[in-house]
Amino acid sequence: MTKDEAKQRLIDAGLVLDAADLGDFTRGHVSVRVPDDPGHFYMKPHSFGLDEITFENLVTCNLEGEKVAGGGPRHSEVFIHSEIYKTRPDVNAVIHAHPKHAVAVSATGRPLRPWSQPSAAFADGIGIYTDTIDLIRSKEMGAGVAKALGSHKACYLRNHGVAVVGRSLEECVILTIMLENACEIQLLVEAAGSPGPEFSHEDVMKLHDKIARPEQHIINFDYLVRKAKRRLAR
Amino acid sequence: MTKDEAKQRLIDAGLVLDAADLGDFTRGHVSVRVPDDPGHFYMKPHSFGLDEITFENLVTCNLEGEKVAGGGPRHSEVFIHSEIYKTRPDVNAVIHAHPKHAVAVSATGRPLRPWSQPSAAFADGIGIYTDTIDLIRSKEMGAGVAKALGSHKACYLRNHGVAVVGRSLEECVILTIMLENACEIQLLVEAAGSPGPEFSHEDVMKLHDKIARPEQHIINFDYLVRKAKRRLAR
Amino acid sequence: MTKDEAKQRLIDAGLVLDAADLGDFTRGHVSVRVPDDPGHFYMKPHSFGLDEITFENLVTCNLEGEKVAGGGPRHSEVFIHSEIYKTRPDVNAVIHAHPKHAVAVSATGRPLRPWSQPSAAFADGIGIYTDTIDLIRSKEMGAGVAKALGSHKACYLRNHGVAVVGRSLEECVILTIMLENACEIQLLVEAAGSPGPEFSHEDVMKLHDKIARPEQHIINFDYLVRKAKRRLAR
Amino acid sequence: MTKDEAKQRLIDAGLVLDAADLGDFTRGHVSVRVPDDPGHFYMKPHSFGLDEITFENLVTCNLEGEKVAGGGPRHSEVFIHSEIYKTRPDVNAVIHAHPKHAVAVSATGRPLRPWSQPSAAFADGIGIYTDTIDLIRSKEMGAGVAKALGSHKACYLRNHGVAVVGRSLEECVILTIMLENACEIQLLVEAAGSPGPEFSHEDVMKLHDKIARPEQHIINFDYLVRKAKRRLAR
Repeated sequence: MTKDEAKQRLIDAGLVLDAADLGDFTRGHVSVRVPDDPGHFYMKPHSFGLDEITFENLVTCNLEGEKVAGGGPRHSEVFIHSEIYKTRPDVNAVIHAHPKHAVAVSATGRPLRPWSQPSAAFADGIGIYTDTIDLIRSKEMGAGVAKALGSHKACYLRNHGVAVVGRSLEECVILTIMLENACEIQLLVEAAGSPGPEFSHEDVMKLHDKIARPEQHIINFDYLVRKAKRRLAR
Repeated sequence: MTKDEAKQRLIDAGLVLDAADLGDFTRGHVSVRVPDDPGHFYMKPHSFGLDEITFENLVTCNLEGEKVAGGGPRHSEVFIHSEIYKTRPDVNAVIHAHPKHAVAVSATGRPLRPWSQPSAAFADGIGIYTDTIDLIRSKEMGAGVAKALGSHKACYLRNHGVAVVGRSLEECVILTIMLENACEIQLLVEAAGSPGPEFSHEDVMKLHDKIARPEQHIINFDYLVRKAKRRLAR
Repeated sequence: MTKDEAKQRLIDAGLVLDAADLGDFTRGHVSVRVPDDPGHFYMKPHSFGLDEITFENLVTCNLEGEKVAGGGPRHSEVFIHSEIYKTRPDVNAVIHAHPKHAVAVSATGRPLRPWSQPSAAFADGIGIYTDTIDLIRSKEMGAGVAKALGSHKACYLRNHGVAVVGRSLEECVILTIMLENACEIQLLVEAAGSPGPEFSHEDVMKLHDKIARPEQHIINFDYLVRKAKRRLAR
Repeated sequence: MTKDEAKQRLIDAGLVLDAADLGDFTRGHVSVRVPDDPGHFYMKPHSFGLDEITFENLVTCNLEGEKVAGGGPRHSEVFIHSEIYKTRPDVNAVIHAHPKHAVAVSATGRPLRPWSQPSAAFADGIGIYTDTIDLIRSKEMGAGVAKALGSHKACYLRNHGVAVVGRSLEECVILTIMLENACEIQLLVEAAGSPGPEFSHEDVMKLHDKIARPEQHIINFDYLVRKAKRRLAR
């Protein structure tokens, strides 16, 4: 993938995340590692919405969280991204958002239950960062989030939001939407009273291994991009 | 109905199901038996959304679940469709989707309660498939779903989704939307606390027999197609 | 008001009710008494959506529920309308719909609580029809609904829907939306646990007397018509 | 800021509040103090929606709640605005709305919990007006709301709605949306059962002090205006 292709993918990811209502004003953000340059990443700029990323305003940062290029301002919570990239060489994309159902699940203090297919994508565990409800505005705090994330695909920031990672940007976007979907279903079940019997962890892991395959994420991401663009073209 | 009319109906059904938010990315699917050829069915292709079915990309499968024609890829869960068509000669359409309220009801482990008119359409029972949360990717698993469905109109796949059938494609689409509507109302009632008195099964069955009439399904389906197309034309 | 003006108002009411998602496929209906002819009413035709009423397809019925003019088919549940018009000379418009939150409240078996301003519009009571979940397809059943309605503005049809009346069509539409809004808030409060202290009935009735004034209903209805038409024009 | 710029901001605020579904027909209202004239304020007119404010119809009122200029009618609840402006010289904008989740939280009788970032914006407290569910149609009642508001950013009107204030119009709009978001998350958590551990008040106040900064409100407001206008232009 060329650098321009990666930038275009970031712009497209923003459209998809906006269509999924994950913006929280301008406060959600998404980044992708620069192709062939693992020490840098492209990131949505501060002061713009997820649906407003452009080649001109997106920012390039290094793993210290410093902006090294780009027309827009840098998010102060850049350290969620930089510290995860630093500790997770397998990760090529990071999203931080405040999805309402995931925030609510984090506030219940209960783990994600295997009550839906999207929940199975996280059957190998989700981290939880409980140091503070505050913004993640230092390397130390970013490192705390990265530590809470561990080797997982996602991490709750309790009463704040989520950090979700992907081997690809496509995976990262789809996992973020799946996590929110799984959390919504969990809240519906819990609100309705006692849950029924569950499948065994072994059974859920069989689905996990299928649902988490990279090519499926790309297929679903590409569809959501087409759909978002059709919507905007109407 | 000609083969081309059946294909156009499948395309229209996709638009309606998409407008009802039943896609779950590209993961929901719908099929219809080929007119005058009960051993084959047309099906939404993998890798496309419900709103993207075309004459070119839709696939034709036989009752072994094999693709015999069509431009798009086949869903690996084709066996939900093929095994139901095999065991249910009265069925001419199948939908598999992951509607959030139906998945949540399946996770509560409780039956559908007669708390709304759409619930009455299922007053003669709903099956529940509890073998696995996993994808239905073999004939054996598809046969398991068909067995759980039995002679019913619909079947929960616990913590996964639903399989809904119809004597016609129109019926299948309307029943799928009605089931999700009924499940949403059930969850609202359960979340709000204890339910009030219910009508007798005999009373609910009187409504069942009216609400399940084929011509009503066609009228409602045709309306939803008009509405979806008006929305897309704006 | 001329007859044509009344018909146009019915068409507009359909657009507003559709925008408020009160259609339930083609199954919700609305009617208005013919100006200067209290023995007849104009009604949305069967087989069309609330957003599809036209001068040509709307039907004129008499108080026996018989269609006497109009291009479209008559709803079989016409008797909800005809029997209410027969017993309530003060009523000039009737709506029957299946709003999900109102249906859920009816299924809880609990009365509407004064937990929101729209609930105050119904502080003088709501009827509840509990004879059957079935469709209201006879004069006798329609008379049962009219009896359950009594002198109220609205009546639940338990586990089925609502019948709402108005001195004007505008009032009828606004009250229907307010009832659904009030029911949604009630379900939110009940789901969240025990409610807090309430205002006295006397206090709520002070609001009732203001919020139920005819000119406010017309102002709000006219706004919703403008809004619905702007949406359709985009 | 010139007077015309303030009027344009009021028009824009209406578009944003409408897009956030805070209208309740024509019943929500918003006002902004006239620049360099603290004894007067511009306000949305009665009989129009939040998305229909124009230079011609907006009204200018004094601190007695009297209309002194403007083409549209004055809201009878103007006294919520005038009495707050009278007692809070730091306040330059007021919104009164009936957001469903905030109304529901007010009806639970429970305080706002620090379970989400937007809730932290109100960590220094929210007032609650409990005198009546009735409309606020006198100076005395408006003064009661202002007293319940005290030095806070927002005030519930129990079982009725909210009054939210801002040092700027932008702040006022963003805070109103944040309060509704926080209330929705609180209801989700409460419906799902017992909440988990919370952060200390000190920790939440650290976020409060960052999230409540004026320039962030302007950035987010400006984004929502762009987004609302793009939506209307489609």
